[in-house]
Amino acid sequence: MRELFLKGMSQLASPVSVVTTDGPAGRAGVTVSAVCSVSADPPSLLVCIHHQSPACAAIERNRRFCVNALRDDQAHLSEVFAGRVEAPGGDKFGCAKWQSTSGGVPVLTDSLVAFECRLSATLLEGTHRIFVAEVLGVGPTDGRPLVHANRCYAAPAPLAIRVN
Amino acid sequence: MRELFLKGMSQLASPVSVVTTDGPAGRAGVTVSAVCSVSADPPSLLVCIHHQSPACAAIERNRRFCVNALRDDQAHLSEVFAGRVEAPGGDKFGCAKWQSTSGGVPVLTDSLVAFECRLSATLLEGTHRIFVAEVLGVGPTDGRPLVHANRCYAAPAPLAIRVN
Repeated sequence: MRELFLKGMSQLASPVSVVTTDGPAGRAGVTVSAVCSVSADPPSLLVCIHHQSPACAAIERNRRFCVNALRDDQAHLSEVFAGRVEAPGGDKFGCAKWQSTSGGVPVLTDSLVAFECRLSATLLEGTHRIFVAEVLGVGPTDGRPLVHANRCYAAPAPLAIRVN
Repeated sequence: MRELFLKGMSQLASPVSVVTTDGPAGRAGVTVSAVCSVSADPPSLLVCIHHQSPACAAIERNRRFCVNALRDDQAHLSEVFAGRVEAPGGDKFGCAKWQSTSGGVPVLTDSLVAFECRLSATLLEGTHRIFVAEVLGVGPTDGRPLVHANRCYAAPAPLAIRVN
């Protein structure tokens, strides 16, 4: 069942983001494909992060984080923050340019779009913690989204379709 | 802020699914782009549904539902279950072929992949209810996923990239 589930989930196309945090628990960042919109009133989203990831504990304490959605030319950042490719000198954040929110959370300078978040609720489910957060700020959008589908990186190609 | 949030979220590429339910509260189905994997141990996922959708109340009572992820040739089903295109005779379920889980929940016969779910937790956040569920069964996978990105339907096109 576990293998069927993983294979089935890999078929879905998911956006790829690097979730970052900083604050009393320190700076951390991790690649996440489980991000989704929750509500527009108030603007809110959720992310799911493995409970053993250092970023999970850091977000729980810092209560502020940023979802930096990646562009289709940023797969290398996805690999670095997923821990599959070692960053030069061991400094993941050294692989890109960052700005800061007023609260000090790193924001990827040239992301597809960045959402500054304040934690509002969490729920532990199996191996992952679900973080629900209010969106306080949205960075400008540019480029095509990076997608993970069928265990490959991809970009969405518009379909020429009639829907009715 | 609300408009910025909606524009930013529209840039992300999201998989498109029809979530179905049946049981004591009756049959319902709705198009959802907020679906994500939560944990593989045990297999679980979440979906976010507007609290005013009839499917929201039905899932809360039935406690069983199915996430039918759509293929790139099923955008018409997305439109029908989103209520943007009227189904012939007003019967949304008449637009496709369905099977049933042992619990009687409709499963789209030729979906990309279908996940049979049992509700384990819910959380209301703004206008939407988050349903967290254990996955009891996974249907076979076939085809390319339907994606919604930048307010268009799309399919993921693999990128020829080196990641390191």
